[in-house]
Amino acid sequence: MKYVRFRDPAGAVRRGEYESGHVHFANESYSLEGDEIDVLPPCAPSKIVCVGRNYADHADEMGSDVPDRPLLFLKPPNALAGHGDTVTTPAGKDRIDHEAELAVVIGEQCRHVPEADAMDVVEGFTCMNDVSNRDDQRQEKNWIRGKAFDGAAPLGPVLATPDEVPEDAAVRSRVNGDLKQDGSREQLIFSIPELIAEITTYLTLEPGDVIATGTPEGVGPLSDGDEVEIEVEGVGTLEHTVRIP
Amino acid sequence: MKYVRFRDPAGAVRRGEYESGHVHFANESYSLEGDEIDVLPPCAPSKIVCVGRNYADHADEMGSDVPDRPLLFLKPPNALAGHGDTVTTPAGKDRIDHEAELAVVIGEQCRHVPEADAMDVVEGFTCMNDVSNRDDQRQEKNWIRGKAFDGAAPLGPVLATPDEVPEDAAVRSRVNGDLKQDGSREQLIFSIPELIAEITTYLTLEPGDVIATGTPEGVGPLSDGDEVEIEVEGVGTLEHTVRIP
Repeated sequence: MKYVRFRDPAGAVRRGEYESGHVHFANESYSLEGDEIDVLPPCAPSKIVCVGRNYADHADEMGSDVPDRPLLFLKPPNALAGHGDTVTTPAGKDRIDHEAELAVVIGEQCRHVPEADAMDVVEGFTCMNDVSNRDDQRQEKNWIRGKAFDGAAPLGPVLATPDEVPEDAAVRSRVNGDLKQDGSREQLIFSIPELIAEITTYLTLEPGDVIATGTPEGVGPLSDGDEVEIEVEGVGTLEHTVRIP
Repeated sequence: MKYVRFRDPAGAVRRGEYESGHVHFANESYSLEGDEIDVLPPCAPSKIVCVGRNYADHADEMGSDVPDRPLLFLKPPNALAGHGDTVTTPAGKDRIDHEAELAVVIGEQCRHVPEADAMDVVEGFTCMNDVSNRDDQRQEKNWIRGKAFDGAAPLGPVLATPDEVPEDAAVRSRVNGDLKQDGSREQLIFSIPELIAEITTYLTLEPGDVIATGTPEGVGPLSDGDEVEIEVEGVGTLEHTVRIP
């Protein structure tokens, strides 16, 4: 099953079933591409727990070692953006990068989840761009200015249940149509169950919370006006534009 | 004015006016010390933006330099705890510290707030303990296991409007009655308006969001069963217990 959350023409927030570019709710059907509805992130997380350096080839391109346990960081709700939105980055920065990620949406409140039970708390998967402001990220201990700014987490549009997404699902980004990243879920250093077990050793996850599982190699700079696509095989493609003032 | 947020005997969440140990709502009055009400954090933040090393003497005791701009980090809503609560820290850690902080509660949604207007977006001040798990904090790049775990942000109980709190308000902690920290708002390296201006350059703040302004020298370890008090002059005293398994 696939779902899309949206604001309908009357302004109400709905979640409908998604199929072939259209979302269905009650007796209505809407195209995702038209102006009739406002496509929202597929969930309303209280927090996004992100994982850094979770693909060996990306750690390598960043000149970093592979961590011996997950490198965690946070994006708060102000970072959310949706499919079709324009993300305006903080002003005066020289280097804003895209980072394509497979994002896990949590389905139930949970803590101390064993790896063996971890997929039971997963509602589904979606696409995220971990938009990164390298100017500040390089200068700060915790990545707040670098990765928690408004719009730093475009998310969606489709939430796909786990059965829709192959174990070796491709995770890709394109900028203005050119393929930039082309990794696979198989390459994750720490698997989704390992991440859920580790995070919930410390933090309670809430329904709608998101775990962004890291990015494959090929991250690179964005320019003002670029059109970004983040694709997760079995889920779909998130599209957004950037404004870099 | 001073306010306390609480769950009343019927289970409803209310915010009443606070005076001399009692909170008043409609025609009722409740003692904060009894069992009749459940005292809640004074606001429901979507995020807590924390500031590290914002007192020179604390940076010194941690063997760190004073930063040239605010060192920011985040605590998500799962970290909240209230007055009178027992905070259970992650298991198997050797060093859990208290850090007394003056916390700022934001009153309106805001971004790009100039320093000169920053106090206009402040609803008031409260007390926070930035409970810190040093075992993990020392090992990680972003302080998630170290400072974002469940219960890492006891907050409250009183929200005091800015006129109640002197410019040189004392910020103190006591453990089992013994004074451990005794700093002053005057010692902040980055003032509250400077913090609001810097944070809102990057992040939108929401009503109820919290900025924790850093801790003075004297941080130290907690033991299982310790009773912690965090006092901000003009606000009041937050009390909680720790369970360190």
